[in-house]
Amino acid sequence: MSSTRDIDKLIEMMARLPGLGPRSARRAVLQMIRKRGQLLAPLADQMAKVAASARECLNCGNIGTEDVCDICLSEKRATGEICVVQDVSDLWAMERGGAFSGRYHVLGGTLSALDDIGPEDIRIPQLVARINNEGVTEVILALNATVDGQTTAHYIADQLEGRVRITSLAQGVPIGGELDYLDDGTISAALKARRSI
Amino acid sequence: MSSTRDIDKLIEMMARLPGLGPRSARRAVLQMIRKRGQLLAPLADQMAKVAASARECLNCGNIGTEDVCDICLSEKRATGEICVVQDVSDLWAMERGGAFSGRYHVLGGTLSALDDIGPEDIRIPQLVARINNEGVTEVILALNATVDGQTTAHYIADQLEGRVRITSLAQGVPIGGELDYLDDGTISAALKARRSI
Repeated sequence: MSSTRDIDKLIEMMARLPGLGPRSARRAVLQMIRKRGQLLAPLADQMAKVAASARECLNCGNIGTEDVCDICLSEKRATGEICVVQDVSDLWAMERGGAFSGRYHVLGGTLSALDDIGPEDIRIPQLVARINNEGVTEVILALNATVDGQTTAHYIADQLEGRVRITSLAQGVPIGGELDYLDDGTISAALKARRSI
Repeated sequence: MSSTRDIDKLIEMMARLPGLGPRSARRAVLQMIRKRGQLLAPLADQMAKVAASARECLNCGNIGTEDVCDICLSEKRATGEICVVQDVSDLWAMERGGAFSGRYHVLGGTLSALDDIGPEDIRIPQLVARINNEGVTEVILALNATVDGQTTAHYIADQLEGRVRITSLAQGVPIGGELDYLDDGTISAALKARRSI
């Protein structure tokens, strides 16, 4: 149908986004068209704006609209602590937690022999360079508790050994978690790391 | 954070779409920014295009990019049958089924005393006018099997009584449906409408 070709194409493009399939893309597009004045046109503008200005921070790899991100520029955050994360989504998760006041380093992936991803591909040399340049005293490895994440953490710890304090996030029972629903690995990690009250 | 304000605003706008919440909007935006060349910029263009051109068909209420939609313009579909649906999404669902070759009439809602929605608000006068103008012989009421949907179906049937043949979609066991999982109302409707094989 020629008159709906543009709409069909929009649905197809929306369906490619993570979390949306053809069905939910149809619903979303129909809703946007119904409210095209308040919803579709402003959303198109905002997307064009972000598409033109979004870029990776040259220093830490965070996503922003400037060459160097606000976190790297902020004097308040020059605490000598760098938190190493795998992805920007992890950085955002840490920021929502609000407990960390230092700077970040986004790797953009993990080491993987299978996928032929080496240290140069995930910004590890840049991390090593920052240790000297920024007077870093502690590197906090906040990598995922997967095999690749932990391999990467070990590699980084080896590279930086003796130059800074290296820590990683504690493993244990999540807040609000019920023991009955936790896997065995988490329970034994929590037991090993038990603390006196 | 000033450098991510545009990105935060985009996430907030995406989170308003049906089927997306703050979490999935963040994931979608991050994915779009990662592939901003192939995904974000073309999507912004396509949205702007649809925002500028999308409109309701003046005849049937379908959504398209012209004043009168392809279905209304197609000579092949002038079969004398009009299928009355509540929403454009229902029209799309009927078209995906591919079993109907006539034209449609989209009400854009149902009669509702509570919400103060009367016949003029849901294009019923336009439907009555089309019966004469288009040489309609049959009106198929494909409205939802809800109280409001059925009230609207009864009202339309009353208005058109004696002028055209009025039918509604059959009620019964869905294809692939298991009796054990069907509600009592569907089973008794299917039993009442049983057919000899």
